[in-house]
Order: sequence, then structure tokens, then C-alpha cells
Amino acid sequence: MKVMIDLCVVPIGVGVSLSEYIVECERVLQAAGLKTELHAHGTNVEGEWDEVFAAVKACHEAVHAKGAPRITTTIKVGTRVDREQTMAEKVASVKDRL
Amino acid sequence: MKVMIDLCVVPIGVGVSLSEYIVECERVLQAAGLKTELHAHGTNVEGEWDEVFAAVKACHEAVHAKGAPRITTTIKVGTRVDREQTMAEKVASVKDRL
Amino acid sequence: MKVMIDLCVVPIGVGVSLSEYIVECERVLQAAGLKTELHAHGTNVEGEWDEVFAAVKACHEAVHAKGAPRITTTIKVGTRVDREQTMAEKVASVKDRL
Amino acid sequence: MKVMIDLCVVPIGVGVSLSEYIVECERVLQAAGLKTELHAHGTNVEGEWDEVFAAVKACHEAVHAKGAPRITTTIKVGTRVDREQTMAEKVASVKDRL
Repeated sequence: MKVMIDLCVVPIGVGVSLSEYIVECERVLQAAGLKTELHAHGTNVEGEWDEVFAAVKACHEAVHAKGAPRITTTIKVGTRVDREQTMAEKVASVKDRL
Repeated sequence: MKVMIDLCVVPIGVGVSLSEYIVECERVLQAAGLKTELHAHGTNVEGEWDEVFAAVKACHEAVHAKGAPRITTTIKVGTRVDREQTMAEKVASVKDRL
Repeated sequence: MKVMIDLCVVPIGVGVSLSEYIVECERVLQAAGLKTELHAHGTNVEGEWDEVFAAVKACHEAVHAKGAPRITTTIKVGTRVDREQTMAEKVASVKDRL
Repeated sequence: MKVMIDLCVVPIGVGVSLSEYIVECERVLQAAGLKTELHAHGTNVEGEWDEVFAAVKACHEAVHAKGAPRITTTIKVGTRVDREQTMAEKVASVKDRL
């Protein structure tokens, strides 16, 4: 099953600047070979369900390993069985009508 | 790794009444033996990471199998390595101060 | 327009224990006279749109005033124009089928 | 108070293709003169709190007016009082380290 997610990892208890932890996540996602798009409130990721969620778990492990005692993450998850659709197509279907 | 999630599954393309699909998810979570708390915008679930996310995948599969062509889900995910904390303790830590 | 929201306020840069900030939000919501239900990943609130979102803004102001330099909040927002539905009815429509 | 939000509006009860409703929201946000960035799971918006949330309400009204009986929306909300930061700076602080 293909999945598109929007991943927003927020480490807690490491002060106010979070970007080095987000960088750690980006590296985990890239190392997993997943297609990603970073934006101002998260990272869109697409791929097979099991690979994508294995990478999400690896992000939590990496951010804890880097020193964050606590993490709160928000994930939006989209699946569809009527047809295939990429992240780029999803954005284009809106932009084409604007 | 223990995890606490808040799972909100929204089937798309099945009309305006979604409760039978939510019921399907609740059954999947219960069949997985996970501790759950239903509320007005989702279901809190706690357990081991792999078991919890296997159940989330099973929810998507069950809701598609029931006829939903498309699903958009929101998951909040909490992990902490400084100490163990249950959902009940998390709620109590706020209620005790009110 | 009536609205049901699920509000999850996460102060950043104040250490790992967040409950005193959540308590502050609960007080703001109660002072606004809104109907609320606390759960392990947030607080469900129902009311008129303008009152509910005024209270959300007041929560951000109160949590900053209490010392949090940064806040990341997640809000789920439900509106419907086909019929009225309370939070309690929404939960009951699932529980009755289980 | 400045705010950065990530807005994801999901109309329910209008079938499986949602892009025309998302287009409606984009037009509302643009008409409000807000700075926006569309991505595969939502739209990032920045501006003054009251203007941004007035636009979110106008999105719900516009999507209902276009025929959606029910809407479920997810909003991530970021505020900070320690310093100003734009959406572009937030993305750059991660990309510069990759």
C-alpha cells in the first residue's frame, strides 16, 4: 500500500531551537531512500507504507539518541485505492485551477 | 519503545456519515489488544510502537476493505525516554492541578 | 457557525514537563464558558466559532505570558451544516455500534 | 501577534475529488492578502493572528457555500515571542544544515 504522509517531529526539553533535530530526521528519511519535500511545518514523504513508517520510527529513535527526552509528532496520512497519485500530482491538481 | 498516539481516521468518498468506519477501526484496535480511549476527535492508543503502528495500518486496510476509496488520517505520536507515563497519568497530571 | 475543535497546545523551550501550561489553557477555556473534554492528547471544545477561536488565541497569549517563548499547537476543526451534532453525540454514535 | 499556520481543509460528503474545494480556500487566502505556500498536505500561511484566523473561518464558509455539508480541518499553529521568524527562514534553517 502506497502512502503519502506529512511528518512534523517536535522534540521537547531541548530548548527553543529545533532545527538540528529536524535535520537529523531529514537525514534519516533521505538515508531510507524516500522521496521528501520539506516545508515550513513539516516534511511530505511518499512511499510504501512499511518503508515510510519504519523511517518515522527511525526518526524518533534518532532524535531521542541526539538528546531529546520527549518527542511529540504529528503525522497526516493519506492512502487511496481508487487510483495512484503522487505528491506532485496532488499539488498540481490545485495549482492548475488557480 | 512505548508510544502514545491519538488516531483520527477520516474516510473520504463515502458520504457524510463516518461512524461505521470509525467502528471498524475501533474493532481493529481492540482485536490488537491495545488500550484505547475514544473521544470526540479520535482515539487515544498506547502500547509498543510496532504493535500500535501495525494496528494503524490494519485500520487503513479495514476501512478501504469496507468501501472507502480514500482515507486521510491524522496521528499525534508521543514518545519519551526520560520516564514511563501512561495516558491516564498524563490526563491526571493536568486534572490534579485544576 | 458552531464548531467542535480538538486543541493541543505544546509550549517549547520550557523543559520537558508541560502540564502547568496545559492547566493554564484549561483555565482560559473554562473562563470563556466553553464546554470542554480533556483527553490524553488534547482538549475537545465546542461552541460558536468566534468564541472558540478567541479562546484559542487567549490560550496562546496566556502560555506565552507564563514564560513559554514558543508554542506549537495542533487544532482539529469540525463544522457541519447538514445538522447539529454535539461532541457527546459524536462519541455515542460510535460507542452505540460497538 | 504574528502566527504561522499549516491549514488542511478536508470537505466531507462531496465524493473523492477535493481539489475544487481546496482551490476555493486558496482563493479566500489570496483575497485576504496573506502569504501562502501550498504543499501536498496543506497550505502554510503567515500573518497577523486575527487576519489569519478570519481567513480560516472564511475558508470554512466558502467550502460549505460550495456544497460541502461537513468539513474536517487540521491546523498547525506556531507562535513565538523570542524573535520574529518567517516561513522561508524556518525552511532555510533546516536546508542550510543539510
